[in-house]
Amino acid sequence: MKPLETLFSISDNSSLMRKYKGKSKTRKLCLCLQSIFPILDWGRYYTIRNLRGDFIAGLTTASLCIPQDIAYAKLANLDPHHALYASFVTPLVYAAMGSSRDIAIGPAAVVSLLLGAMLSHDIRDYKSHEYLRLAFTATFFAGVTQLALGVLRLGFLIDFLSDAAIVGFMSGAAIIISLQQLKGLLGIPHFTKKTDVISGIGSVKSVIVHHEGKKHKKLFWVAAIAPMTCVIVSTICVYITRADEKGVSTIKHIKGGLNSVSANEIFFRGKYVVRGFRIGAVAGIVALTEAVSIGRTFAAMKHYTLDGNKEMVAMGTMNIVGSLTSCFVATGSFSRSAVNNMAGCETAASNIVLSIVVLLVLTLFTPVFKYTPNAVLSSIIIAATTNLVNINAVIMIWKIDKFDFMACMGAFFGVIFINLEYALIIAVSISFVKILFRVTWPKVVVLGKIPGTSIYRNIEQYPKAFQITAMLILRVDSPIYFTNCNFVKDRILRWLRYENEERAECELAEIEYVVVDMSAVSDIDSSGIRSFERLYHSLEKIHVQLVLANVGKIVMEKLQESKLTELIGRDKIFLSVAGAVITYGPKREEL
Amino acid sequence: MKPLETLFSISDNSSLMRKYKGKSKTRKLCLCLQSIFPILDWGRYYTIRNLRGDFIAGLTTASLCIPQDIAYAKLANLDPHHALYASFVTPLVYAAMGSSRDIAIGPAAVVSLLLGAMLSHDIRDYKSHEYLRLAFTATFFAGVTQLALGVLRLGFLIDFLSDAAIVGFMSGAAIIISLQQLKGLLGIPHFTKKTDVISGIGSVKSVIVHHEGKKHKKLFWVAAIAPMTCVIVSTICVYITRADEKGVSTIKHIKGGLNSVSANEIFFRGKYVVRGFRIGAVAGIVALTEAVSIGRTFAAMKHYTLDGNKEMVAMGTMNIVGSLTSCFVATGSFSRSAVNNMAGCETAASNIVLSIVVLLVLTLFTPVFKYTPNAVLSSIIIAATTNLVNINAVIMIWKIDKFDFMACMGAFFGVIFINLEYALIIAVSISFVKILFRVTWPKVVVLGKIPGTSIYRNIEQYPKAFQITAMLILRVDSPIYFTNCNFVKDRILRWLRYENEERAECELAEIEYVVVDMSAVSDIDSSGIRSFERLYHSLEKIHVQLVLANVGKIVMEKLQESKLTELIGRDKIFLSVAGAVITYGPKREEL
Repeated sequence: MKPLETLFSISDNSSLMRKYKGKSKTRKLCLCLQSIFPILDWGRYYTIRNLRGDFIAGLTTASLCIPQDIAYAKLANLDPHHALYASFVTPLVYAAMGSSRDIAIGPAAVVSLLLGAMLSHDIRDYKSHEYLRLAFTATFFAGVTQLALGVLRLGFLIDFLSDAAIVGFMSGAAIIISLQQLKGLLGIPHFTKKTDVISGIGSVKSVIVHHEGKKHKKLFWVAAIAPMTCVIVSTICVYITRADEKGVSTIKHIKGGLNSVSANEIFFRGKYVVRGFRIGAVAGIVALTEAVSIGRTFAAMKHYTLDGNKEMVAMGTMNIVGSLTSCFVATGSFSRSAVNNMAGCETAASNIVLSIVVLLVLTLFTPVFKYTPNAVLSSIIIAATTNLVNINAVIMIWKIDKFDFMACMGAFFGVIFINLEYALIIAVSISFVKILFRVTWPKVVVLGKIPGTSIYRNIEQYPKAFQITAMLILRVDSPIYFTNCNFVKDRILRWLRYENEERAECELAEIEYVVVDMSAVSDIDSSGIRSFERLYHSLEKIHVQLVLANVGKIVMEKLQESKLTELIGRDKIFLSVAGAVITYGPKREEL
Repeated sequence: MKPLETLFSISDNSSLMRKYKGKSKTRKLCLCLQSIFPILDWGRYYTIRNLRGDFIAGLTTASLCIPQDIAYAKLANLDPHHALYASFVTPLVYAAMGSSRDIAIGPAAVVSLLLGAMLSHDIRDYKSHEYLRLAFTATFFAGVTQLALGVLRLGFLIDFLSDAAIVGFMSGAAIIISLQQLKGLLGIPHFTKKTDVISGIGSVKSVIVHHEGKKHKKLFWVAAIAPMTCVIVSTICVYITRADEKGVSTIKHIKGGLNSVSANEIFFRGKYVVRGFRIGAVAGIVALTEAVSIGRTFAAMKHYTLDGNKEMVAMGTMNIVGSLTSCFVATGSFSRSAVNNMAGCETAASNIVLSIVVLLVLTLFTPVFKYTPNAVLSSIIIAATTNLVNINAVIMIWKIDKFDFMACMGAFFGVIFINLEYALIIAVSISFVKILFRVTWPKVVVLGKIPGTSIYRNIEQYPKAFQITAMLILRVDSPIYFTNCNFVKDRILRWLRYENEERAECELAEIEYVVVDMSAVSDIDSSGIRSFERLYHSLEKIHVQLVLANVGKIVMEKLQESKLTELIGRDKIFLSVAGAVITYGPKREEL
């Protein structure tokens, strides 16, 4: 009667399993390979029209990606070519294994910052070879963490970072990054020298252009190619004016050529293994959070299913491969995926196009970056990260849920005033405290009859709903657990006292029946059963009958097991509140 | 329209506050004093009939209490007179301040064991004066902790120890205590000497008598006076046979006279302050758990209200006073309170009677314990603690809730194999994981129409309920939070796919409307709102309409704030499932 229960999965695999039924071995192998490498599936239906979309999208994304990569490498305190390596290798792996059609893969701002912060906490000297090795180690373990989460179907853990926490975390990180970059942008480290006017202007333009592009969706490509244009224009300016000789700091050198193997660089023993694992696990989870969040948004927009666990396996594999080929942690980035999507990507093949473009740059064009001013990179980072500060989302969160807002602010100020790891812990803790808070003090509301119907609803929500003579109808808005069972019991007794006082003042009949609507009580534990027993006895002493309505399946089974149904009496348990009122309520009145 | 919200209170103070309205200052002071010392209130109505009940109950309880005290002191590795001191001073304080009419106050087995274990972990040599001082310090801080919980109205924290955890904890502790006492009972430390046959037989009798007493409620007094009888009989036997000279170990000496002041013995500085506080906090909370649990049970039985916070203030004060007068931690004990209740106690004055009897013993009869064999004390402890092993409760917990059973077993084996503190932490953790588990993977059930009604219920629970053509009606059985919002969304989409496949096989119409019954969705957060947006878009793409029914007050406000009502459409939100089906369902059929 119901779909397979896969409690530990956030995705739908039952239909996949069904596919294998009654197939030959070769066919099974084929299907299995297709499930690991979705490209074998969608690749067969790939058309020229798909290619056109993916080609344009890949090209556009690449033009955003290359300057971003060079900039993000700085956030991780690594040389630019490692980021370009990552943009070459990881998109290829993802194209083969990923199930999202819109995510563009590569280093991302927040993850790079997080990586840089955590790495330099352990090894201060980021020019040292140890630092680079620890970066590869962390990348490797980030991949292992992601792969493990996917294989063990623990993808749900990602959900423990609430949207509110992510918004706060990203905004905080964006502000930290921007403040850091202002140094570079305004040339503060060389403040005594001439400020970098030319590229400063360029970068301001870049920010403005970016935001203009965001406003008018058709002009998205302006935003997409703005960074590359800025880089080109400012590089040419510097080359012509020889500003680099006058104190404007430039990139100077990017190592060209393809990725070198770094498998032998990863720490597999010694004190750095544990540190690398810790950094990798945190960075891997944050990277996943970003990627899964983007992936879900686009999947919902274009209506296709995203297998969260498969995504994690793809991300994990790509980072492991990356760590073996001199890359650092890559993920699906917000800004690039948006550009990729808006440029009309059709499949994950756009990542292959992106990868090929980066390959060409790596092999042919690295020398041209010699004259690219660092300030323009800072401006690119600021332009990319300011989009992460999502004030509207924060306002919406404030409106919807004050506790969520606290989690959001916890993450935000945590990032700014403490560090990124603690910020995550703070936000997650607040989110969980909120759940426990709600479970500990649930609402118990008074129901009334909506005139002309047999429907009973909260009298506060529906002021026209009226109460029944000599009856008090209450709804408990939560499962009943040890944390709230005494609260619920006391609250019911208190409502009874309060209503009796109110009714006495109006000279109405005393309450003879307390009807508890159990619609929202989806579960009860042994403490809850015991407090219901106590409630029953307390009511019995004052000659008030306890009546239950709409008891769910699980709760009913537990009431039976504990013989509470017999104590309360089977004639006191009803399918609906209306049924209870018809049986025990006043016979003549408005019913 | 509703009673004062006192979120942080487990008790009812609103009526109390009302009392103060419009009264003169003297009257207010008087009421305030009455609220702190309930004896000033009930004392005014005290009758001879009350006195008779309390006198008999106090006397009976004392006859159980004195041998238990001497025995429990051994569990805490303290001299017996400290326990007798505690049974003299603390019941007096409680009688004045407590609001329960049935609790009998004094040292309790589990708390004494816990105290002894924790104290001797810090100071191995329990004969040293330091040990005694730490015991007073811990008692002091236990009182402070209890008082603080009461004053700050944090009584709800006690509820975080679920019934299941308490059952497991008590059973485990009882077994540990009994095993320890078997040594004493069988005289194992003196195994090479003659075993203590006389008192051994006595003790076995005591256990049997105790259990017989429990079975026949009218014979409770047999159980109540059995320990005292055993003590007297065995003491006389030892005195006549001079068995103490033949190797039977006896108490030898109990210091007589009244409590000495111990205020100057408490550590207020130095390394033991923190340790004392830690021990005291744990012991204080465990003591409260026992007392509040007993208090609630009797309050429900006799129908009076127990103010949890006031109870904590009373317990806290009595332990602080106790720590200043050479007592160790006292609380309401299971066995004595049961005897007190069965002997017909009427008010807390039975504690005063108990206290006076103990006073008489302390001043007059301590020398008679010289010949009391230690083995009989062990048997008394075993008799008292075997009642704590509540197999029926464990079986009931197993039947009702498997997770609760895990918490119970966690506490039980934690006590036996690790220690009492960890056992509590394990049990509380399991209990909380269970709540998070349920919140993370809530049920999403399919509803059907119950023939002949307009009621829609779970088709698994009501097999006669039938589904509506072209509609899928689902109920989400939990508030929607960040932890479960994606699960709920995926589960809804999955039910849709599954039902469509099933219906296609039976050549039924495709589903056009998904109706989500929100009865049990008492709350939603910003992640939940976002996943509903995604759900709406996903359904839109496959031309399925999303309809909501019975949206509660809080959720409705949030849907409006987030403009989700406008996205879904106000014509898609209904008061009840029946309303939605009437509007969008098939017109002709069985409706």
